[in-house]
Amino acid sequence: MNERELIARLLPALPGNDSVVVGAGDDCAVIDLGGPEYVLFKTDAVVENIHFTPATPLERVGRKALARCLSDIAAMAGKPTAALITLALPPKFDVRDVERIYAGLNNLASEYGVAIAGGETTTSPGGILISVALLGTVEKDKCALRAGGKAGDAVFVTGRLGGSLQGKHLDFEPRIREARWLVEHFRITSMIDVSDGLAGDLRHILKASRVGAELLSSAIPISREAKLSKRAESSAKPPLLAALTDGEDFELLFTVPPKSAVALLDGWGRQFPRVPLSCIGKITADPGLRLRDKQGIRTLELHGYTHFQKP
Amino acid sequence: MNERELIARLLPALPGNDSVVVGAGDDCAVIDLGGPEYVLFKTDAVVENIHFTPATPLERVGRKALARCLSDIAAMAGKPTAALITLALPPKFDVRDVERIYAGLNNLASEYGVAIAGGETTTSPGGILISVALLGTVEKDKCALRAGGKAGDAVFVTGRLGGSLQGKHLDFEPRIREARWLVEHFRITSMIDVSDGLAGDLRHILKASRVGAELLSSAIPISREAKLSKRAESSAKPPLLAALTDGEDFELLFTVPPKSAVALLDGWGRQFPRVPLSCIGKITADPGLRLRDKQGIRTLELHGYTHFQKP
Repeated sequence: MNERELIARLLPALPGNDSVVVGAGDDCAVIDLGGPEYVLFKTDAVVENIHFTPATPLERVGRKALARCLSDIAAMAGKPTAALITLALPPKFDVRDVERIYAGLNNLASEYGVAIAGGETTTSPGGILISVALLGTVEKDKCALRAGGKAGDAVFVTGRLGGSLQGKHLDFEPRIREARWLVEHFRITSMIDVSDGLAGDLRHILKASRVGAELLSSAIPISREAKLSKRAESSAKPPLLAALTDGEDFELLFTVPPKSAVALLDGWGRQFPRVPLSCIGKITADPGLRLRDKQGIRTLELHGYTHFQKP
Repeated sequence: MNERELIARLLPALPGNDSVVVGAGDDCAVIDLGGPEYVLFKTDAVVENIHFTPATPLERVGRKALARCLSDIAAMAGKPTAALITLALPPKFDVRDVERIYAGLNNLASEYGVAIAGGETTTSPGGILISVALLGTVEKDKCALRAGGKAGDAVFVTGRLGGSLQGKHLDFEPRIREARWLVEHFRITSMIDVSDGLAGDLRHILKASRVGAELLSSAIPISREAKLSKRAESSAKPPLLAALTDGEDFELLFTVPPKSAVALLDGWGRQFPRVPLSCIGKITADPGLRLRDKQGIRTLELHGYTHFQKP
């Protein structure tokens, strides 16, 4: 049983209440606490030997732990507010290591105006685990969900995809500013951050929105790392496959009504000249995820991973 | 370096912002998100072989993980709203074990009207770790802090103390209802939940309130477990010492102006006939924590642990 199956088994029994606008199954929980804006609530953990290695500089590990949560707040178009840090440390730890983790956390928090309002340290018989709990807010009419994509909508993605494990997964910039600008200027019908890979995360949008999508192969922005690793090592994933299926890109993937697409590309280029934005396809009424290239249309199967089939 | 010293070293560098009403150093962080009430924000983790053993039934482990956070919300007189659960599991885990943990979490959450709005499972090379992030709210004029105790205030504690590790630490009832009733009927000048032991947690109040206290030895409510364990095993802590220094009681410790004390005891007895409430002493302008008994007054030294000294 994988994590997805486990969650499917646990979900129906989770207790709810009237405060929950969106529960498990989106980038953040959306809670209505009676204020003018919704409260966004997110936790995310990074674990030694899974999300980072003992060789990873701990400043970058601390930074990544918070950046992942910030990316989820961005995916809802939220404004991050305050975080609590849970640090599980091996019985024998070096105080300087903890200070390095906090240096990474504190620097990124300061950059995004996030308060670190407390937390705890506990001993863990395993390696280091950092769990970040993050609060944010979003105007009730600007909260971007996975559900909401409509047939005909244009599909956009920021940045260039694939090969993140070569370094970007530690140093990516959460797209808070970009997401805020998007919802302040356009009607974003659905949004997610790309953490499982473009194909996998687009499937989350399609499932929540009950639609399908057709992507244009040549429009998918492929990172330099994904291209170079294929050149350096013939056994590496083809660059397009890496862009479709590598995890941890932490870019924004979103849909807008088709009439907004040109104005969006135009405005984006002026506002964020250094952040690529690509229109990669469109939402379809037909379910499923399809890729169009010179040879025709192929169906992409499975979550995150693709099996190319001749049409 | 212990956890306290580590925190003292990290605290000054934590970034803040205008939303933080109370940051690290109270039972919960208090955040102002612009709504009519303050938002309470808490995380707490339980770790296998530290907070529970592999033999502990996992329903009770799940229950405890949430109950600890509820106790912290109670300590601020808050109303719990929604939780996120982070579950770190060994590489080979039994799905039924996860279901047992969630059964304990779900039952307690339902009992207190708390939504479980999501979370994540991750692999951990060590044992099981459950981190709970909990949101609550509290009216701005009812939020009970550690700071606020005044010389002359009466010191109260709920329940009976000591010996919690014999079972109560897994099955304690978080004092949400009691705390709400307290702030709805009386002016609570300071409050904390007893997790480190009565002496240790009272010190937190005294430090935050910049006062001292004198406790009446004979008034301290000692649990049956603390009394019996001394009778069964002569090397066990004396029962009074257990009541003063054992951890994980999860009772409320609070102060009220002296003129409220009689009305409080009277009203409490009618409202919560099955929950003991004891007036155990008074706040003093003189700093430090003192214990009065038939022999005179002794000073209690150190955090949580006591060295009896002849006066």
